[in-house]
Amino acid sequence: MTESAAITDDEVRQIDAYWRAANYLSVGQIYLLDNPLLREPLEPAHIKPRLLGHWGTSPGLNFCYAHLNRVIRERGVEMITIVGPGHGGPSAVANAWLEGVYSEVYPDVSLDEPGMRRLFRQFSFPGGVPSHVAPETPGSIHEGGELGYSLAHAYGAAFDNPDLVVACVVGDGEAETGPLAASWHSNKFLDPVRDGAVLPILHLNGYKIANPSLLARIPEEELVQLLDGYGYQPFLVAGDEPASMHRKMAAALDQAFTEIAEIQHGAREEGVTGRRRWPMIVLRSPKGWTGPRELDGKPVENSWRSHQVPLGHVRDDPAQLAQLEEWLRSYRPEELFDDTGRPVKELLAAAPEGDRRMSASPHANGGLLLKPLVLPDFRDYRVPVDKPGTTSSEPTRTFGAFLRDVVKANPSNFRIMGPDETESNRLGAVFEVTDRVFRGELLPTDEHQGTSGQVMEVLSEHLCQGWLEGYLLTGRHGLFNSYEAFIHIVDSMFNQHAKWLKVTRDLPWRAPIASLNYLLSSHVWRQDHNGFTHQDPGFLDVVMNKKPEIVRVYLPPDANTLLSVGDHCLRSRDHVNVIVAGKQPALNWLSMDAAIAHCTRGVGIWEWASTDGGADPDVVLACAGDIPTLETLAAVDMIRRLFPDLRVRVVNVVDLMRLQPDTEHPNGMPDREYDALFTTDKPVIFAFHGYPYLIHRLTYRRAGHPHLHVRGYKEEGTTTTPFDMVMLNDLDRYHLVMDVIDRVPSLGGRVAHIRQRMADQRLAARAYTRLHGEDAPEVRDWTWPY
Amino acid sequence: MTESAAITDDEVRQIDAYWRAANYLSVGQIYLLDNPLLREPLEPAHIKPRLLGHWGTSPGLNFCYAHLNRVIRERGVEMITIVGPGHGGPSAVANAWLEGVYSEVYPDVSLDEPGMRRLFRQFSFPGGVPSHVAPETPGSIHEGGELGYSLAHAYGAAFDNPDLVVACVVGDGEAETGPLAASWHSNKFLDPVRDGAVLPILHLNGYKIANPSLLARIPEEELVQLLDGYGYQPFLVAGDEPASMHRKMAAALDQAFTEIAEIQHGAREEGVTGRRRWPMIVLRSPKGWTGPRELDGKPVENSWRSHQVPLGHVRDDPAQLAQLEEWLRSYRPEELFDDTGRPVKELLAAAPEGDRRMSASPHANGGLLLKPLVLPDFRDYRVPVDKPGTTSSEPTRTFGAFLRDVVKANPSNFRIMGPDETESNRLGAVFEVTDRVFRGELLPTDEHQGTSGQVMEVLSEHLCQGWLEGYLLTGRHGLFNSYEAFIHIVDSMFNQHAKWLKVTRDLPWRAPIASLNYLLSSHVWRQDHNGFTHQDPGFLDVVMNKKPEIVRVYLPPDANTLLSVGDHCLRSRDHVNVIVAGKQPALNWLSMDAAIAHCTRGVGIWEWASTDGGADPDVVLACAGDIPTLETLAAVDMIRRLFPDLRVRVVNVVDLMRLQPDTEHPNGMPDREYDALFTTDKPVIFAFHGYPYLIHRLTYRRAGHPHLHVRGYKEEGTTTTPFDMVMLNDLDRYHLVMDVIDRVPSLGGRVAHIRQRMADQRLAARAYTRLHGEDAPEVRDWTWPY
Repeated sequence: MTESAAITDDEVRQIDAYWRAANYLSVGQIYLLDNPLLREPLEPAHIKPRLLGHWGTSPGLNFCYAHLNRVIRERGVEMITIVGPGHGGPSAVANAWLEGVYSEVYPDVSLDEPGMRRLFRQFSFPGGVPSHVAPETPGSIHEGGELGYSLAHAYGAAFDNPDLVVACVVGDGEAETGPLAASWHSNKFLDPVRDGAVLPILHLNGYKIANPSLLARIPEEELVQLLDGYGYQPFLVAGDEPASMHRKMAAALDQAFTEIAEIQHGAREEGVTGRRRWPMIVLRSPKGWTGPRELDGKPVENSWRSHQVPLGHVRDDPAQLAQLEEWLRSYRPEELFDDTGRPVKELLAAAPEGDRRMSASPHANGGLLLKPLVLPDFRDYRVPVDKPGTTSSEPTRTFGAFLRDVVKANPSNFRIMGPDETESNRLGAVFEVTDRVFRGELLPTDEHQGTSGQVMEVLSEHLCQGWLEGYLLTGRHGLFNSYEAFIHIVDSMFNQHAKWLKVTRDLPWRAPIASLNYLLSSHVWRQDHNGFTHQDPGFLDVVMNKKPEIVRVYLPPDANTLLSVGDHCLRSRDHVNVIVAGKQPALNWLSMDAAIAHCTRGVGIWEWASTDGGADPDVVLACAGDIPTLETLAAVDMIRRLFPDLRVRVVNVVDLMRLQPDTEHPNGMPDREYDALFTTDKPVIFAFHGYPYLIHRLTYRRAGHPHLHVRGYKEEGTTTTPFDMVMLNDLDRYHLVMDVIDRVPSLGGRVAHIRQRMADQRLAARAYTRLHGEDAPEVRDWTWPY
Repeated sequence: MTESAAITDDEVRQIDAYWRAANYLSVGQIYLLDNPLLREPLEPAHIKPRLLGHWGTSPGLNFCYAHLNRVIRERGVEMITIVGPGHGGPSAVANAWLEGVYSEVYPDVSLDEPGMRRLFRQFSFPGGVPSHVAPETPGSIHEGGELGYSLAHAYGAAFDNPDLVVACVVGDGEAETGPLAASWHSNKFLDPVRDGAVLPILHLNGYKIANPSLLARIPEEELVQLLDGYGYQPFLVAGDEPASMHRKMAAALDQAFTEIAEIQHGAREEGVTGRRRWPMIVLRSPKGWTGPRELDGKPVENSWRSHQVPLGHVRDDPAQLAQLEEWLRSYRPEELFDDTGRPVKELLAAAPEGDRRMSASPHANGGLLLKPLVLPDFRDYRVPVDKPGTTSSEPTRTFGAFLRDVVKANPSNFRIMGPDETESNRLGAVFEVTDRVFRGELLPTDEHQGTSGQVMEVLSEHLCQGWLEGYLLTGRHGLFNSYEAFIHIVDSMFNQHAKWLKVTRDLPWRAPIASLNYLLSSHVWRQDHNGFTHQDPGFLDVVMNKKPEIVRVYLPPDANTLLSVGDHCLRSRDHVNVIVAGKQPALNWLSMDAAIAHCTRGVGIWEWASTDGGADPDVVLACAGDIPTLETLAAVDMIRRLFPDLRVRVVNVVDLMRLQPDTEHPNGMPDREYDALFTTDKPVIFAFHGYPYLIHRLTYRRAGHPHLHVRGYKEEGTTTTPFDMVMLNDLDRYHLVMDVIDRVPSLGGRVAHIRQRMADQRLAARAYTRLHGEDAPEVRDWTWPY
């Protein structure tokens, strides 16, 4: 980029002053306990005892922020910034304070000297604010923790936000991650008509924690090829001399925003349909720019040594203390802040006004903009069930019809993400009313692909999750459908989002947002085309480690219960809801009314299947999940024939959280309620969808726990038939009957021959499968006969 | 690519015959139960009852395999292939059978008609082989399950294998994933002198399950820019007419292998040091190539409809049956197989010989090539401990010195991977003997960066894990060091690798390989610079879901125990070992001899800290993990002063698996041993490194479980001091004393004032921290006083 004449010398001075102020505030946060305006010479007592924080990325971030503010002011653009570099906390906080927003949100951190002292002191300080951009940071929808998701978040924020520009600073460390490397391609999913724009700013400051960064060390020609290949038009801004850099950056941003305006105008006003190359900025500036040049003869500025705290011994080394003071004074704070410590007028004027301030944007506090979904009555999509367990439906297909009408009723407020599995998961009805959006080349033979659409499919769970998070955090709604096993790909992203939600609950100024809804199908028990690698129900275990206030897990056993649960999840706020549901034809157990009642309770006795007359069972057969429910009911059928006098109770669990004590989880059951369902002293055979330990973990405090025996997935599987899968894991109906025999003392040794018959029937079933390649008809065609 | 004169018409015929044979065998596996050579007209009874498998990618894979075989024969190259497309099972199995290897490994699947019948029948059939490339597949080190890791595996296999070429077919579905998008940059970490070569073959067949693929739908110019930008020299092969495609592919491969030879010669013989652009192939061919053109008027070949089973109703639709027969006969099986069903001589001659056959390569059964590590005596690196808990060390720094000498003694057999954290995790001693390998631009100011080296750092946990897996699976050793929280990024990769190892244990022909060792530092309790997002010990929960034969978790409490555990892990085979250890200065508890004895048992009573005289304690304080151990011992110190008569037992757990029953895990303890340590009736206060539920899950079957009270991480945290972190989660010494008071009945109400004093001391500690920004001296400076 050459220097542009677009900005005047006065503007350069103004931007530079703003930048110096933000830099000063960033350094102050890392070091200072007191003497925030350097009104007296710096002393060790003014320095924090533990120096924690990250300087390296802050000056570059401040530089971007100052320049984006100019663009907002000049063009009236509505903009938010995603701070990709993990340790950009000092910068984001500094800018929010300079814009006055920090003091509006946290009045005790006022826009004056006492406020500045608090601002400095609280940073990375016990009881204060974290060193990353975080939920506590006004203007942020992106946690600076685990790296890789900034650009996906940015695109998620831009979808269905036609007037918004999302500037996204991508650190060159983050740029090495897989999710980020894939995220560049998000431009093939952005519709310039209905979506806003994303302006990526790849910030090459050259170093990570202890290493050069990859993209900073390839030839510029190669870098440009790469970004061209990703479909962008990169504008390069490189250097370290501030005045010249200000001019280059201003020129680059002017060109980029002009391009954005042209692309949008072309698409919106002139009907241009082809994909255009969106602009982006490559900013090459020194790490720790304007910080100490060197220490002990080694470079600090423009080196990984400026990553964290460049001068680490300020408190006990007078030379370092002097160096820090010189560094701070180099920003000339006396020109930047008035006698009260308030930023001088010129600085305040450099910031946009009102909601146009990026730190005040309602898009970065999406709950403020949240509109409830327009939801059709889910009961209208029910399957008729006159008698339990006699007819079949594909639950996700049933739910798909409901989703179709949700899509239709919320054309710019609801999206479905999935890694190429929406059709495979049998939600294909949505394609009656929308397309998969894709801006690559479309062919006449393509089906349900369009340049616009509410379904987003890309074979990257990371992108699906990242886009959806960005979409939700800016105040919209959505659903992520995926294969159960592969949702582990985003374990860590789920963790970070759940942590974000946990923190926001303690921040009254953050308005609640729509829940993150997972619909996991193609689950562990029905991987007919696939094998062992596709069999993993452990995402539930990951989810259960997060705060009970945030997480919910639902295992609807059939089509109508899925409808009820799905409707509930789409209405909820600030949760992560995980729904596991089958896509294969499966028996319908409950009518719509029964399903609603059952899902409302979350767990309940299925009296129509039980023989205990509502009291005092000899044994409880419990189940959670569609396949475990099927096997349990088939076992109950056999038990009723084999032991007509045995008092059997069937309990089905839809809401897994109900199993916990109410002291542990808001959905949990008090002991008396749990005991009434499961008894305190009778054997409970629990057939569970996932790893059996999870049920023990939820129930170990219950009085009846010593009598609880759980069957579930025990990591046995391959490509085989559905019934062979349950046999491999001892979850099959025959084995459940054997478990009952083994655990109900009153049956005792008298029934050894029946137990043997069950074992023989298992062997016969397996032999049949191995011979014929399909399950035996008596298994396959079983229905509930009562 | 233009057609080349490099191959003769005869060669084209030979390659085409081989290709047809592999295609025939691929289709046969998907459909046929019987009549494998079509000696009689095809009937419904010859067809499998459940049609499972994937055709779409197979013809392209077969095409690559046939051509790579020619290169092997002509150039004598040592090569293996990574099959990236998830559903390439039919192809890999077909080729292994054609090369004769399948019959050598599985003699019942002989190289004749009965063998072919078995080959067909077993595929995706109960009791048979899975539909993916899998551990069962000779020649494979790469499971076709979750997508994204083929190229990282390929590079891992090539490191320190100078004579090997790893061909890697990357599907265009997989190419959309984040990990794959980042993997292209692996070429910046490959040393042409000491490493082999990777030849990526990007296979654009245009479609995923139900969607076009992204890279197939961007302009070719953009695609080439992208691959150029990734640092490759792409050769394009596109078309659908077989004879022409054979010539183009042969020409492209000839150019690519000539390039590879030139790059290697230049680097090895002529001292060329700069990074060169490695060649790669872009193969654009129809999905389901040579399969049915259309069905019901809709395209099948060159469409997503050929992804799985193109003709789905062959058994009950005579027209489809006829179409299948026509399809199968189009390969002219009568020309390909002799009367006995054996491939004709010309075909057999098209395959390489002996170990040069890719399906027979020992590199793809790495245990065959495994050399034990040369290990220095870990005891030589011990820290002296005369008295427990009085001196401090940084455990990972101590371990780093040992690792340095492991690196040195195994210059081409051992690598350390890490996302830019080797120095941060205080393993920096390794840089005394090696560099981080990096082929980007190096500057004079760089430290420990080199064009060659045994440490590999890139800010992508996916790449670290993928490279290490490829390195281990080809018979070498390594260690992955990472921040604890961010190892969740590779949860799903760990899952897949553990599943791979589980399956190989049942395959006697697969030789054991070195274990995958994780060293997790910068753990949940010591995130001084970081915050809530960096605090997540849940990887342990993910690990525990896998097969007990495979997984091990170690929590060494100090430096000497880390040395002992680390040495053990580096010697082990076929496991995944997870070690969690601190990097901050921490008290040394055990001398080397004591550490060895303790680690050998995995769990033990610390008698020197206990006051129960070896029998009949009033309370057990158990701990696992360095910080929990510190807090427990500090609590015990207080308890000994407060309640001199209380009989306290201290139990420390290093090997978490020991807590399980021996019926559940090979390292598990029998009940009598557990009961002897933990008692069956005394309160146990267990301070645990991770989420407390994990301990309950491991111990719920023990008699003493109702008396077990676990403290651990409960998802509370932020940027704060170390002691504030344990207080936030109620794991601190004061709270442990309160727990003892609450749970030891003999202390009763008499000690309410002491409990109150503890609560007051906690509040005081917190107040001190908030005021001073660091922990109170009595906490910070505590040592074991006895």
